[in-house]
Amino acid sequence: MSRSSLSAVDCGAAQALDILGEWWTLLILRNAFHGMRTFDAFQEHLGISSSVLSARLKKLCEAEVLEKRPSAHDGRSFEYRLTERGLELYPVMVGLVLWGEKWFPNGRGPRVKLRERRTGELAEGVHLMSKGGQPLSPFEVVPEAGPGADDKFRALIDHRQRRAE
Amino acid sequence: MSRSSLSAVDCGAAQALDILGEWWTLLILRNAFHGMRTFDAFQEHLGISSSVLSARLKKLCEAEVLEKRPSAHDGRSFEYRLTERGLELYPVMVGLVLWGEKWFPNGRGPRVKLRERRTGELAEGVHLMSKGGQPLSPFEVVPEAGPGADDKFRALIDHRQRRAE
Repeated sequence: MSRSSLSAVDCGAAQALDILGEWWTLLILRNAFHGMRTFDAFQEHLGISSSVLSARLKKLCEAEVLEKRPSAHDGRSFEYRLTERGLELYPVMVGLVLWGEKWFPNGRGPRVKLRERRTGELAEGVHLMSKGGQPLSPFEVVPEAGPGADDKFRALIDHRQRRAE
Repeated sequence: MSRSSLSAVDCGAAQALDILGEWWTLLILRNAFHGMRTFDAFQEHLGISSSVLSARLKKLCEAEVLEKRPSAHDGRSFEYRLTERGLELYPVMVGLVLWGEKWFPNGRGPRVKLRERRTGELAEGVHLMSKGGQPLSPFEVVPEAGPGADDKFRALIDHRQRRAE
């Protein structure tokens, strides 16, 4: 499936995957969340070719997930910083990490621990939250088609409702 | 980057992406979360070739994200059901959908709304939660290397700490 055909799938997940659904892109973002900012640092840490890295960074900047700007320390060089849009991927990224940690451990214990800065406590987990502040399981949530839903998505919701009846 | 080399990257995100980091796989899981269960239903809704769909379902079953079992309605056919491991991808999947909805809208309003079954209220959002039940931003969390961290991951954490000093 070409990238352009995925961006034509009118679903939030497909739109997001069109930007993110590629291994290097997500590992670049993981490193950005760890505070990595420069082309050279990404290249050295990921062991990625400069042409692939350039292409991925360009796409992330075009999608306004990263912003390229002059380095704060050296006006001749550039750095890549997460935008507001990029920062909002935090729960997705961390959810992916914690899921991988839990179900694909390496046998030597956790690779990473996430501590709340203020309390030093380990973070509890990533959840879809109710308005009332409770974590919601898939069984406690009903998806419905909104005004922007296309026929394919309505068919998916109808499929679910037929099963539930 | 070949799949095998990604599974060799010892990081929760890389392990997860080795299973999930591919568009069709995530769209198959999205449909599974909407209650879709049969090969034919996946094929019809996604417009995917049977060879690609077979390969993706096989990989998801091998990773124990989906389970293939005789259909409850027709003992001669099979269905694919999310396992406990698969169900725990719910916040990642929904986080991706909500992020795509917010930042890549189609101009006709939301494509999907997620309502809490019990209250009928829209779900609030996907967050990393503190032990105390508060959503945590990336700035409120400090990652640290655990006993299972390899040298590459320790280098990433060190990189962050050097920046912070």
